[in-house]
Amino acid sequence: MTRPYNFSAGPAAMPAEVLQQAAAEMLDWQGSGMSVMEMSHRGKEFKSIIEAAESDLRELLAVPAHFRILFMQGGGLAENAIVPLNLSRGGAVDFVVTGSWSQKSFKEAGKYCETRLAASNAAQAHTELPDPASWRLSRDAQYVHLCSNETINGIEVHHLPDLKALGSDAPLVIDFSSHVASRPVDWSRVSLAFGGAQKNLGPAGLTLVVVREDLLGHALPICPSAFDYKTVADNGSMYNTPPTYAIYMAGLTFQWLKRQTEGELCGVAAMEQRNLAKAALLYDFIDQSQLYVNKVAGNCRSRMNVPFFLRDESRNEAFLAGAKAAGLLQLKGHKSVGGMRASIYNALPLAGVQALVTYMRDFEKTRA
Amino acid sequence: MTRPYNFSAGPAAMPAEVLQQAAAEMLDWQGSGMSVMEMSHRGKEFKSIIEAAESDLRELLAVPAHFRILFMQGGGLAENAIVPLNLSRGGAVDFVVTGSWSQKSFKEAGKYCETRLAASNAAQAHTELPDPASWRLSRDAQYVHLCSNETINGIEVHHLPDLKALGSDAPLVIDFSSHVASRPVDWSRVSLAFGGAQKNLGPAGLTLVVVREDLLGHALPICPSAFDYKTVADNGSMYNTPPTYAIYMAGLTFQWLKRQTEGELCGVAAMEQRNLAKAALLYDFIDQSQLYVNKVAGNCRSRMNVPFFLRDESRNEAFLAGAKAAGLLQLKGHKSVGGMRASIYNALPLAGVQALVTYMRDFEKTRA
Repeated sequence: MTRPYNFSAGPAAMPAEVLQQAAAEMLDWQGSGMSVMEMSHRGKEFKSIIEAAESDLRELLAVPAHFRILFMQGGGLAENAIVPLNLSRGGAVDFVVTGSWSQKSFKEAGKYCETRLAASNAAQAHTELPDPASWRLSRDAQYVHLCSNETINGIEVHHLPDLKALGSDAPLVIDFSSHVASRPVDWSRVSLAFGGAQKNLGPAGLTLVVVREDLLGHALPICPSAFDYKTVADNGSMYNTPPTYAIYMAGLTFQWLKRQTEGELCGVAAMEQRNLAKAALLYDFIDQSQLYVNKVAGNCRSRMNVPFFLRDESRNEAFLAGAKAAGLLQLKGHKSVGGMRASIYNALPLAGVQALVTYMRDFEKTRA
Repeated sequence: MTRPYNFSAGPAAMPAEVLQQAAAEMLDWQGSGMSVMEMSHRGKEFKSIIEAAESDLRELLAVPAHFRILFMQGGGLAENAIVPLNLSRGGAVDFVVTGSWSQKSFKEAGKYCETRLAASNAAQAHTELPDPASWRLSRDAQYVHLCSNETINGIEVHHLPDLKALGSDAPLVIDFSSHVASRPVDWSRVSLAFGGAQKNLGPAGLTLVVVREDLLGHALPICPSAFDYKTVADNGSMYNTPPTYAIYMAGLTFQWLKRQTEGELCGVAAMEQRNLAKAALLYDFIDQSQLYVNKVAGNCRSRMNVPFFLRDESRNEAFLAGAKAAGLLQLKGHKSVGGMRASIYNALPLAGVQALVTYMRDFEKTRA
């Protein structure tokens, strides 16, 4: 079966194998006589699903034993409130603003703590990554917030900062929504990572939080119980009814990830090699083109989200219509920046990027 | 195809037709080349899905034009915080406690407002409904909270109170999680209704809020933006990425509901007739039995959740094992009350209750 290539920024393409298995099991999961959607979350069937999902994710991301994995709801936007409700202790928090998402996080946190702007690339129109050596980190910050991949602006942090070396003892919190599981995470530098599932992990409606155990138990009294990390952890992500089907789909995706290999590499390490190859192909093509342009500095271009513009914007509609006709879907850029955006997450294969580059080359040549 | 009958309290049975359609459309929704899970929530395809879902639900529940329908996340437990964050204005709220769920709502709201116990059936072990004439309603309450169906205790409010007639000008908030769409709602008596989807509407991970428009815009400053009803309403339930697949499944369920008929009745009115017949069959059987007992007062027995006990509890395990062998799943009672519970939501047909009664009669006769 040939499916179109889907470049949506999220909810995003999922592996066809995962969707096929879900369709096959829809009315009867493994002889249980129930759809996964119909199972009590307290029953042994669903318990086996969520436990496998957590264990597979722990293996894939090499999450250390002193971190807890939480399956929550509300997406990254809800976490913009939930993180400071749990970690700020009402004190000060340092924010590194590198694009739309970290800007939103910065603004929302102001409801719960003193927010300090440690660095910003607003003056560079969110096209560069502020050098960590220049960040103004506070001595008394409860944590430092960094969005490690800005979905809208196409900026990725390729080297997580060593806060200790920068003179800060604060935990580093990263929003890894749009590049989770696309590359390994250096947990020695991260204390909490959160992300919506709908880019690289599964369907929308599931939020992943990976948090160092000693950060649990410090929520503000006004934190809703359902969003208190300690309550969620103590109840195995089942204090409230979890989004069971989304967890099942994420679990199938984790199994798919574990099966992926590149040479001797497997899992997330294999995905990283593929993602490097995909990104290199697309950026190299854009850079040599006369029609297309990507404005992000070379050292922080996202491997996942590639925003680009046509130098002749009057051709935007024709570009999108031709792409759709060629089986290349959802390439329109975010409304706040315009232009185009190719999101090339794990589930989008190299062949999809090759097809995109072929189309872009053809479009540039024949209709210029 | 014969599927077992699934009596789970939630996540719960879904109509087989709905699951079949979802399986068939899993890899390609209506020729779009995408699974619903893979669609941008901003695209025209998903917009058509969410708009149809909202419109169908408005028709099914006869929601008046001055009420907004919100699709949210976090379930009933999160709403226990979200409702007072939005409606309490930091003032006082009256709670009618009739079982486990309203008890939880009462406790959680204490974080945000002055909670007053207007009535409680704790002294009757949550088996009776306090007469509204006896409720101690405050003159200055910001709202009155009532759980209109207690899933665990099997108590249902069959006549929503007329607060005005009881001397209160406060809006009535109902938690209708476990009987939404099983019967019509008298919106002249309700100002806000909320419920998790995982009983009668669709998969877990989706929360429905139906709220009178004039109650929007009064959230406390500490309310997370993603849970501010006005923000959610102003953004058409897409301030944060909504649980797109759960909304799609709920939408399919709404279409299924619209197709249901009983005589000249259709939709929710038809379901109410079926639910009355199902409940009568089961309660009547239990009441004449020597083995089984339901302890809830006759005027407030739930049509959806029927908790019952074996007078000889040593036979519990045998009862459950025999039921499973007979294709009757998930009958174990909630851990907090023990015994059995048959949840007979919309998707559980009369034939399922007939099969259950046949099994129960057989079990009582042959193994006594």
